[in-house]
Amino acid sequence: MGIHDEFSFIKAITPKEKRREDVIVSIGDDAAIFRTEKNSDTIACTDTMVEDIHFKQETMEPFHIGFKALAANISDVAAMGGIPQYYLVSIAIPEKWSEESLMEIYKGMEHLAEKYNMDLIGGDTVSTFGPLVLNVTVIGSVENDRGIKRSSAKPGDVVFITGNIGDSAAGLHILLNEKANKNQLSPLVLKHQMPLPNVQAGQLLVKQDRVSLNDISDGAASEAIEIAEASHVDIILYKSQLPFSNDILTFGFDRALNWGLFGGEDYELIGTISQNSWEKVMAEFAKIKIKITKVGEVVEGSGKVFLQSEKRREQLLKQGYNHFGTR
Amino acid sequence: MGIHDEFSFIKAITPKEKRREDVIVSIGDDAAIFRTEKNSDTIACTDTMVEDIHFKQETMEPFHIGFKALAANISDVAAMGGIPQYYLVSIAIPEKWSEESLMEIYKGMEHLAEKYNMDLIGGDTVSTFGPLVLNVTVIGSVENDRGIKRSSAKPGDVVFITGNIGDSAAGLHILLNEKANKNQLSPLVLKHQMPLPNVQAGQLLVKQDRVSLNDISDGAASEAIEIAEASHVDIILYKSQLPFSNDILTFGFDRALNWGLFGGEDYELIGTISQNSWEKVMAEFAKIKIKITKVGEVVEGSGKVFLQSEKRREQLLKQGYNHFGTR
Repeated sequence: MGIHDEFSFIKAITPKEKRREDVIVSIGDDAAIFRTEKNSDTIACTDTMVEDIHFKQETMEPFHIGFKALAANISDVAAMGGIPQYYLVSIAIPEKWSEESLMEIYKGMEHLAEKYNMDLIGGDTVSTFGPLVLNVTVIGSVENDRGIKRSSAKPGDVVFITGNIGDSAAGLHILLNEKANKNQLSPLVLKHQMPLPNVQAGQLLVKQDRVSLNDISDGAASEAIEIAEASHVDIILYKSQLPFSNDILTFGFDRALNWGLFGGEDYELIGTISQNSWEKVMAEFAKIKIKITKVGEVVEGSGKVFLQSEKRREQLLKQGYNHFGTR
Repeated sequence: MGIHDEFSFIKAITPKEKRREDVIVSIGDDAAIFRTEKNSDTIACTDTMVEDIHFKQETMEPFHIGFKALAANISDVAAMGGIPQYYLVSIAIPEKWSEESLMEIYKGMEHLAEKYNMDLIGGDTVSTFGPLVLNVTVIGSVENDRGIKRSSAKPGDVVFITGNIGDSAAGLHILLNEKANKNQLSPLVLKHQMPLPNVQAGQLLVKQDRVSLNDISDGAASEAIEIAEASHVDIILYKSQLPFSNDILTFGFDRALNWGLFGGEDYELIGTISQNSWEKVMAEFAKIKIKITKVGEVVEGSGKVFLQSEKRREQLLKQGYNHFGTR
């Protein structure tokens, strides 16, 4: 088991051809070189997934692990309004992983990279005595000074969410607790194992006047709090307006709500936009057939988020988020 | 032990101010954004260090671990003739590491980043049940179409090495075997724990006509083989001309030779340049007081490297290099 020859493994994972003309030097030298377009800023982000912390082999095939690691980074680029272009992969490999499984991780990434016309331009392959650690760095671009920050929300803005929330956590629940249904490829399981980042939505939003935006990697509550804190406002989410799939609602509204607010890994987008722009944005999303829902409003405040139901307003706190708090 | 609060830790490692005007969005949003200069290509590389594989706490203080992880990446940028500008750090943290030790890792990086006017613009902080895994990605720039590849060597070229080789491996030997001398801060130990990448030498070489270049991370033999293979030539290294420090020679020539050719982690530069340019380059290096030594010549061939002594010529093979070969 494990990799027997580092060189042949690296050769096997090295792309045979490049997709992007702007790649000047790819894998095989000390570093990669590429050329940024004029009038574009460059975006960079990185994300690490650790075996038995971020994923378990019981619930994620190696293909899914690669797919999701790249998806998480593409989602970060989407949340800046950017276009993903290149990626670098560092992997620390334990002896117990087979070369076939490792190749599947790269295939999962490649599958997504093809969809977004991205090139694998670098990385590092090392061994470890611990669990598998997969680190992906994505580099992308956005038009000069158009990058979407979290800090642009203003009182009076509409709060919106793309797609549905909670499906990924519901999918994980099925994988862990309903082994009989595990192989049925429920849309919820699919959303957990192969979440599609929302680059197209980000592209549409980046053209608007003033938008704040986060991708939902840690649950809608946590992401809304980040926007509220960065923008020095409060956010009110309407309990009855949160977008759920029919699939998740078969588990009942309360569980859907909990998964949506605190589950995470949906890789949808949550953001704010002025009332004036909202009607236009809704129409544009309808045209490209991407679901977008008004879920709340921005009010004056100091970084708090509230869930508003018919009868009461409760403050939402960050939950299930601090990697180190539960130890 | 371990990190008790991810948010306060991230706050503690987040730079209070940025050094570079071209950083538009730094840590604290989904991704970082920066602006590349006109007429510049962008360089990206990444490197991962795993506890008990790439370093042991017996021989490397946390400060050194951070310093060296960043140095290894800066060295890759130097070997492309580039200027390092930004870095991202992903770290998988086991419970047994204290927050103080982790802060020291970041201080070690910061120490080097200050020297090179680099900004920490992103990263990821996760927990792990295994050893500490430190991944650093560096982004830099090089003048359009000037990036130095490995593949430019031609028969007749001079082969050169900057600084001395083998010191890092000798330093590790001292740390592992001569515990009595361990605290004497020998220059060899210093070279192992805090190797300085050679950006200035890369800057001088990138202005020359036709250069091939590698940084010495895996031993001079292995790096020479990479140049020979990429350039489809053979390289002959003169045994008597290899540059060694007086410190390493106290261990005898044979050990120095072995450490220099196969030890690695010196982060000096090895490369080739035409005979015509060599005299000029020597003079320019003398002016800025950086040691550079002619160590061999490029001949027609097919990717082989030979060590030439008075009486014989022996082929050098890659050694101590394949992370997975010895398991």
